Amino acid sequence: MTRRQITGFSNPTVKYLRSLRDKKHRRREGKFLAEGLRLLTDAHESGRVPEMLVMAEGRDPHPLLAKLENSVEAAGGSVVETSHDILAKITGKSNPQAVVGMFEEWDSSLSALDRSGAPIWLVAQALRDPGNLGTMLRTGDAVGAGGLILIDDCADPFSVEAVRASMGAVFTQSIATARWEEFIEWLRQEPGQLVAASLRDAVPYRDAPYTAPCFILVGNESQGLPEDYEAACDLRVTMPMRGRADSLNAAVAAAVLAYEVLDSLKL
Amino acid sequence: MTRRQITGFSNPTVKYLRSLRDKKHRRREGKFLAEGLRLLTDAHESGRVPEMLVMAEGRDPHPLLAKLENSVEAAGGSVVETSHDILAKITGKSNPQAVVGMFEEWDSSLSALDRSGAPIWLVAQALRDPGNLGTMLRTGDAVGAGGLILIDDCADPFSVEAVRASMGAVFTQSIATARWEEFIEWLRQEPGQLVAASLRDAVPYRDAPYTAPCFILVGNESQGLPEDYEAACDLRVTMPMRGRADSLNAAVAAAVLAYEVLDSLKL
Repeated sequence: MTRRQITGFSNPTVKYLRSLRDKKHRRREGKFLAEGLRLLTDAHESGRVPEMLVMAEGRDPHPLLAKLENSVEAAGGSVVETSHDILAKITGKSNPQAVVGMFEEWDSSLSALDRSGAPIWLVAQALRDPGNLGTMLRTGDAVGAGGLILIDDCADPFSVEAVRASMGAVFTQSIATARWEEFIEWLRQEPGQLVAASLRDAVPYRDAPYTAPCFILVGNESQGLPEDYEAACDLRVTMPMRGRADSLNAAVAAAVLAYEVLDSLKL
Repeated sequence: MTRRQITGFSNPTVKYLRSLRDKKHRRREGKFLAEGLRLLTDAHESGRVPEMLVMAEGRDPHPLLAKLENSVEAAGGSVVETSHDILAKITGKSNPQAVVGMFEEWDSSLSALDRSGAPIWLVAQALRDPGNLGTMLRTGDAVGAGGLILIDDCADPFSVEAVRASMGAVFTQSIATARWEEFIEWLRQEPGQLVAASLRDAVPYRDAPYTAPCFILVGNESQGLPEDYEAACDLRVTMPMRGRADSLNAAVAAAVLAYEVLDSLKL
């Protein structure tokens, strides 16, 4: 098995991979990185094979890694070995995992979603924290959601932080990006209930009249949802707030609501 | 009103405040920082007044800030004005908020908790992410929990990240730190149900036989709970996992469970 060795910090491949930590470069190149054998194995089992696999020299052998290498090479991808220090440079972490994969991003348009394929969909509006975004993907996987729809200017789901927080769900959940007007137009073409956690004109979230496919919408971490977005929802629900605050963390609100919908729909 | 001006980066107060970003220094000094008028107002309304208030020169006047200044001075604390650049140095952020407070940490022993004062308590074991920890505090506030008990080696609830993620709940929720053996001994001295999200010998989380005061236990982000900790629980519950993953984000699991307990106890 032929395998490329990279020994220099100024190697163009190192520079290229490193540049993918930056959103602007990811957008332009349509590529992203995922770190660690666990995440790469999740990807593999979901049918996503990296275009390039970068492994640390002197790593412990592992049957899953060997399987992954074979798949990458069978798909025409490249396998690279390099030093621990160069991996640290690529990932920006002083203690990087022993393996990193570079993936091609996939279609993220609304038209690629199969809404009848799942009873629950998560929708985030202007969610800025990549950890929250990854956590929503992870929750979506857990409740059997079809995917996550990103409205307005959200964090990048392919950032290292979001990919890591998703615990592999970035590879299993569909992801679409759209402006609000596009989303509403697409939503209204077929049956689908849009539900928001809200303080305005809302009913208790427990035993509210949810119907599938149910689209659960949460808003920006500090601003919440714009009033006209809430007004466009089919159902506004409210969760008990027994303390001083009037809101939950966005990813937490999405999860509490998603589990309630899951139970309510008797899924 | 007299007020101290700080103009030099090497001023000892600047160095001292800056050092509080480091856990080791926070522990030694028993002080921590909270940034931003919103957080400081939350603290104020919860009866927590900073020992020192540091404000940017040229900030916009604000009635809440004026009120806060008065309270700090009435309590014998100090009010300091400094440059935007020095505030950036203190907080480590290039775009800091216009005001920072230094607080004294408070008693964090189990014996300080009033368990009968609340029907729900959250318990985290070896939770490493300060954002998750702050999110649990925020959720605790929302469900009317009494506080958060930190078992084994958790992230610092007084770190800037945890304080920020708590959205002020660090000032309203009780916080206690204990070793597992101490916690179990304390727990068993009076009525209290210990509940864990678990995959082992668990019942469905919906409509499980919860009783107050209910202590909801979640484990480390990557390891989960040790098996013997789970075995010591009065109730092990499981949440539906419809995807590839077998677990939720720790703060999400705590929240889904806490809202279920809240409903189940008819609070």
